[in-house]
Amino acid sequence: MKLFYAPGTCSLGIHVLLEEAGLPFERARMSLKDGDQRKPEFQALNPKGKVPTLERDDGSVLTEWPAIAYWVAARAPAAKLWPEALEDQARALEAMDFIVGTLHGHAFSRLFNQAKYAPSEADHPKVIEQGRAMVAAGFDVLEKGWKGDEWLLPSGYSVADAALFYVTFWAVKRMRMDVPPRIAAHFERMMARPAVQRALAAEGLAG
Amino acid sequence: MKLFYAPGTCSLGIHVLLEEAGLPFERARMSLKDGDQRKPEFQALNPKGKVPTLERDDGSVLTEWPAIAYWVAARAPAAKLWPEALEDQARALEAMDFIVGTLHGHAFSRLFNQAKYAPSEADHPKVIEQGRAMVAAGFDVLEKGWKGDEWLLPSGYSVADAALFYVTFWAVKRMRMDVPPRIAAHFERMMARPAVQRALAAEGLAG
Repeated sequence: MKLFYAPGTCSLGIHVLLEEAGLPFERARMSLKDGDQRKPEFQALNPKGKVPTLERDDGSVLTEWPAIAYWVAARAPAAKLWPEALEDQARALEAMDFIVGTLHGHAFSRLFNQAKYAPSEADHPKVIEQGRAMVAAGFDVLEKGWKGDEWLLPSGYSVADAALFYVTFWAVKRMRMDVPPRIAAHFERMMARPAVQRALAAEGLAG
Repeated sequence: MKLFYAPGTCSLGIHVLLEEAGLPFERARMSLKDGDQRKPEFQALNPKGKVPTLERDDGSVLTEWPAIAYWVAARAPAAKLWPEALEDQARALEAMDFIVGTLHGHAFSRLFNQAKYAPSEADHPKVIEQGRAMVAAGFDVLEKGWKGDEWLLPSGYSVADAALFYVTFWAVKRMRMDVPPRIAAHFERMMARPAVQRALAAEGLAG
């Protein structure tokens, strides 16, 4: 299979999961700045024009972060990336959907592209201010709702940790923002994982 | 368990699934216009201040549309709302995440609340125009990627159909927008289901 990714974007989380899974995969590097996601050959694969996009060995394409994470986890049961108990499974989906849909989709998104929100450039500082408040509120929800110990879920390391990792990577490494203590400690633990180090190195983000 | 819902919002999809599941549940009606979601007693249940919110019988609370759908489906296996094969499961998540995160979260969201996007009121018509284009593009992705027959997935009726239903309900009933033919036919089939009729009646939206 082949992961279409852009360095340091949300596809980093899926990249980590593929490394954790230990399944063979190829990488196809995209440049969102150069508009690779809008080129006809990529649009034919994924008309949503987004990364992560996963092309499977039969040529079929899977999109959407939580769906790809679920499928990768199921294909590598030995890596135990998907929890066994229903309650933990529901909590894994709840965390992924909040992180991908709200914390990334609404909060960080305002810090990355203000023009998507406010047509008037004079309003862009307000969009950034709103985005920073939403990022802080999102991490706060995760910190206060923390149910696990070292990892997000009480059942241990899972797909949800890879989702939390990519947004925390943005906060800590790209935005130099403070994150709450449990999130900060989680980030350190993630950075120490060999799978994370391999994914970062492959994306040119190590060190 | 108790579903916290606001009539005609995305919680309608979960309301439909609870009716399909045949599990006993109570309804707690919220008025988003009156700010019920920001009141301290609801914030204590769900600090995200969103519907759908599901309070389970042990008092614990589950949030996020796909997570609630997954959990409800798992609690009512006889209703077969969650597909059996991995490929269909991944496609169910892919469809739900796109519908909830993108089609609702980014496209319809612009039609419901322009102030969330553009601080300047003069820009609100542009936000609406952008929202309408994004809604059309989103339905187009679903129409062209349709893999099922009567229902969204080839394996038959599932949680994904309830997600598609609530956004199509907005398009057809609230916005009077045209939707592509497969989506329109799906909507008619959904409207004919007794579970959908019960949910609409309970929310005061029938007829």
